[in-house]
Amino acid sequence: MNYTDKLRRAVQSANSTLCVGLDPVPENIPTPLRQEYSNDADLIFEFCRRVVESTKIHACAYKPNVAFFEALGAPGWEAFEKLLDFIPSNRIVIADAKRGDIGNTARMYKRTYFERYQTDAITLNPLMGLDTLDPFLEDDSKGIYALALTSNSGSADFFQRRFQGRMSLSEYIAEELSKKQDVSRAHIGMVVGATQVDSISPVIRAFPESSLLIPGIGAQGGSIEKLSAILENHIGIPIINSSRGIIYAGGNEENWAEFVSQKASELKESLKAITLRYVE
Amino acid sequence: MNYTDKLRRAVQSANSTLCVGLDPVPENIPTPLRQEYSNDADLIFEFCRRVVESTKIHACAYKPNVAFFEALGAPGWEAFEKLLDFIPSNRIVIADAKRGDIGNTARMYKRTYFERYQTDAITLNPLMGLDTLDPFLEDDSKGIYALALTSNSGSADFFQRRFQGRMSLSEYIAEELSKKQDVSRAHIGMVVGATQVDSISPVIRAFPESSLLIPGIGAQGGSIEKLSAILENHIGIPIINSSRGIIYAGGNEENWAEFVSQKASELKESLKAITLRYVE
Repeated sequence: MNYTDKLRRAVQSANSTLCVGLDPVPENIPTPLRQEYSNDADLIFEFCRRVVESTKIHACAYKPNVAFFEALGAPGWEAFEKLLDFIPSNRIVIADAKRGDIGNTARMYKRTYFERYQTDAITLNPLMGLDTLDPFLEDDSKGIYALALTSNSGSADFFQRRFQGRMSLSEYIAEELSKKQDVSRAHIGMVVGATQVDSISPVIRAFPESSLLIPGIGAQGGSIEKLSAILENHIGIPIINSSRGIIYAGGNEENWAEFVSQKASELKESLKAITLRYVE
Repeated sequence: MNYTDKLRRAVQSANSTLCVGLDPVPENIPTPLRQEYSNDADLIFEFCRRVVESTKIHACAYKPNVAFFEALGAPGWEAFEKLLDFIPSNRIVIADAKRGDIGNTARMYKRTYFERYQTDAITLNPLMGLDTLDPFLEDDSKGIYALALTSNSGSADFFQRRFQGRMSLSEYIAEELSKKQDVSRAHIGMVVGATQVDSISPVIRAFPESSLLIPGIGAQGGSIEKLSAILENHIGIPIINSSRGIIYAGGNEENWAEFVSQKASELKESLKAITLRYVE
């Protein structure tokens, strides 16, 4: 099954465009769970496993951020690998790795994420050149999400500045990715984060078939409605990510997992207008 | 000791500006060694350990490319960690990770490389914004090398194009890094690769105090002389990296490690004119 079919099936099966980001920080994990584990790698594994368990009827995708596993060394990677077995196979797994490197090294990262861990997709950083994406584009069952716009303030340093005297760097990246899609087997998606959702518009207009991974939405009230309007003519499937807003929703409550589930359910509901476009 | 002092001491102690890149691919490791190991992680560890042993009198720095360890999963990370113990403490270790992410995630990567593995420096990708470098810039005993120019053909896609209508993106990055250095504790270096060494000039002119990590030199004959001329007025310390050219120099010979040592010695010698500027 190719990546876009897999993604569409996941959205339909969960009736949701919500992606849950897994960024486990040992010291932020609810106390009741934290007290049960002396080992950080076991702790983040069990925390993430329960988050998946509590949210899987509300989410079409999971986005483990590998930095949080990598920080625990070899045991962290074992936790990452074990966790993947607990994500339902009709959901999408996106390795949030933001890797970006040349030839030989890119091939190693491809081997790591698409072969060893068999994730469905990976986030990639295109700065070193569009050729750095090539090793990831050989297999149509896989997808990539290239960074095209981010929501941090530093996004103003490069992404939002004029490039080649014509448009923003973000728009330029989107245009180039669109051309690349024509000659690639794997699906090319984009990460488009934005504090001001308006800034997404010109970027996605440059590549309407691209599936989208949209982080940073939901923290500000009201922006989802605006986002829904902006996405109306976009052809590719958008998924909307929330990480800390969901996984730490239970604070240190005994029944923290219920809050996690509740929060995911609410977000799914708030995304309904967007989701409905892909589930008829 | 701050990073630039550590770097200067390493150059003086090895009497060399050579950096050895450790990019171990199991299937490319000399047959005599490969036959001794059934486990890839043990194999790459032992290969790298012997490369370090054979080159340490010729090199001031080692640059393990983490992608090659990451590709082997948890055992690969154990190999990476174990290897660090075999690099002499008066040499510099640069984790070639090319990470780049926002706030919380950047702090995780900092924790990984500067705290868990205690490497002296890390390569970083600045695309997501200059603020993504901040977590790495708090400790003056550490250094970063931000990507400013690369030697792959895709370097033409972004680095070498006009940005803000004034200069290349590479020059812009260098200028911004120079400003950032004024308010940072840790040392900011740059990765400046180039097939045509001339293209390095405008980039390093924009940040003369920056230490440099220069990959991709030596494959073309004669370019080291030109590089030496270009670096003449640069204030920061340049180190010149060779990876495959050194570590696989022995082919499948029984005495492959002697070829590795010989190749490192030759490269050290060819860099003498550059090195001499930092060892009086």
